[in-house]
Amino acid sequence: MTKAAVFGTGSWGTTFGMIMARAGVETTLWGRRAEIVEAIDRRHENPDYLPGVTLPPTMRATGDPARALEGADFVVLAVPSQTLRSNLTAWKPHLPKGAVLVSLMKGIELGTTKRMSEVIMEVAEVPQERVAVVSGPNLVPEIAQGQPAATVVSCPDERTMEHLQEACHVPPWFRPYTNPDVVGVELGGAVKNVIALAVGVASGMGMGDNVGAMLMTRGLAEISRLGAALGADPHTFAGLAGMGDLVATCTSPLSRNRTFGENLGKGMTLAEVVAATKQTAEGVKSCESVLELARKHDVEMPITEVVVGVVHDGMTPDEAGVLLMSRTPKPERYGV
Amino acid sequence: MTKAAVFGTGSWGTTFGMIMARAGVETTLWGRRAEIVEAIDRRHENPDYLPGVTLPPTMRATGDPARALEGADFVVLAVPSQTLRSNLTAWKPHLPKGAVLVSLMKGIELGTTKRMSEVIMEVAEVPQERVAVVSGPNLVPEIAQGQPAATVVSCPDERTMEHLQEACHVPPWFRPYTNPDVVGVELGGAVKNVIALAVGVASGMGMGDNVGAMLMTRGLAEISRLGAALGADPHTFAGLAGMGDLVATCTSPLSRNRTFGENLGKGMTLAEVVAATKQTAEGVKSCESVLELARKHDVEMPITEVVVGVVHDGMTPDEAGVLLMSRTPKPERYGV
Repeated sequence: MTKAAVFGTGSWGTTFGMIMARAGVETTLWGRRAEIVEAIDRRHENPDYLPGVTLPPTMRATGDPARALEGADFVVLAVPSQTLRSNLTAWKPHLPKGAVLVSLMKGIELGTTKRMSEVIMEVAEVPQERVAVVSGPNLVPEIAQGQPAATVVSCPDERTMEHLQEACHVPPWFRPYTNPDVVGVELGGAVKNVIALAVGVASGMGMGDNVGAMLMTRGLAEISRLGAALGADPHTFAGLAGMGDLVATCTSPLSRNRTFGENLGKGMTLAEVVAATKQTAEGVKSCESVLELARKHDVEMPITEVVVGVVHDGMTPDEAGVLLMSRTPKPERYGV
Repeated sequence: MTKAAVFGTGSWGTTFGMIMARAGVETTLWGRRAEIVEAIDRRHENPDYLPGVTLPPTMRATGDPARALEGADFVVLAVPSQTLRSNLTAWKPHLPKGAVLVSLMKGIELGTTKRMSEVIMEVAEVPQERVAVVSGPNLVPEIAQGQPAATVVSCPDERTMEHLQEACHVPPWFRPYTNPDVVGVELGGAVKNVIALAVGVASGMGMGDNVGAMLMTRGLAEISRLGAALGADPHTFAGLAGMGDLVATCTSPLSRNRTFGENLGKGMTLAEVVAATKQTAEGVKSCESVLELARKHDVEMPITEVVVGVVHDGMTPDEAGVLLMSRTPKPERYGV
């Protein structure tokens, strides 16, 4: 029987654990907080992150990383992106030989501009054939409620990738597709939040669905250009981890980035939005590292540029719009 | 000075005429109804299709096709798809030698399963270098209100394509990109309505944004497979005429196809939806010809298949969902 350890008892870690358990995998969650671990292990619920959802009774939880990792074929990582390096360093001694490390995380490490799979390879000292990624249009509350969803599992090793596909395939609830392009799959999830901010700003300005669709499509074009420079397959961006995740994030009222942008588009300043919503959005932090990455590779990312301008440099949403719409005429496809 | 004749005084014909006039093109609209022609030509308004919008005073209108066509460099066709053949046959004797015929129409001719540009080439007896296509996320009411939008102009002849790009480029209002892949650009617009029906059905069933994004993305994957079989460039579908138009149509409350699907998803029968909305939707008619085209070329289109099933063969939306989610596991990209 396939065994999995899932690190992180947040909403996505818990839900993905549920999916694996229902796919017939012996699944153990690791969590830091004893009361959540106990709720999952004893009462089959996670009231903090998934109130009202009954977890599969076969799914276990523990606060001991060594116990969670014992005999695991898959080590699923679902911790906050910026804590991955220190967490994984602590767990490394207990990693079973030959286990495949699976990232559910979406983000770029601040400072190093590394993708999560790169951090995993570096810290765990494993070859890329043993690192996999799961990414797609996966708004967690909808999946946890039992709505169907599809995703992409990615790994350069074909057999590992198909094993992981099987380990999270639960028809007709959850449908994973395979795609060996780890770089592309990971980049889609990391950069979409910047575009979601732009779509939110436009919506806050009163713009309709043409502008939204234009920003998503041209946003995906600039993500694809960045991807091409980093060695991704451009086709990946037309898939679930590219277009799919982008569209779900940009259209969902559940998206923090979209909502944050909306407030900026209505004329609030960054400080006012942060004060009003008591939180910041992923894209606010990552837009600068994405732009840094783009400049390092000499890639044009006009939407990311105006997002940085509006969020950090006092550009007004109107100025941003005029700037984008007044660029020189272009062919639809360039730089890929 | 560049001259254009626009055939059709509906909302898109009139709006695209406005765009060309504002790009500095000498533009004349042809219309069948004398009162609309007069309103456009004398009072610079089209109260039937664009109430409240002031048209550029330089834009003229006439009921005489020969007068509209005199000296035209671009002949823009914006009539209902299924009337193109008979209309163009009547106008053919007056077409200026060397004029470029531009299609704004989205559809497949019933019976022949031909794209609009193919009908144009056949009826007007012009080579493909003289036929161009404009398609993208262009919900007309938003453009007519002055909101920005982007589109794709396509023609196999590079200079003609760039001339047309210039003839409809109005920064910061309207931004055309070039893409020489006519087949792909045209197919995106023709098939999107079938996917919009599917997205509507899911929404009517109470599904959220994951399902919507999954249907749009996998819908685009099946459009791309059909496109590849017909000789299109798969990259086109990740662009404004593919993903862009699809997203705008599937997310807009203005979309008839989406709304029609929503009613089906709520459990109404085809007859009940038609009775309630007093109209049918493009996708209801075209889903069968799209499926016919797919079968002719041996292309798998699972979403189109269940749309035909739900709309025409009494399949329930629940059965359609289970069928789609229970297919064998797949790689994300196949058949292209």
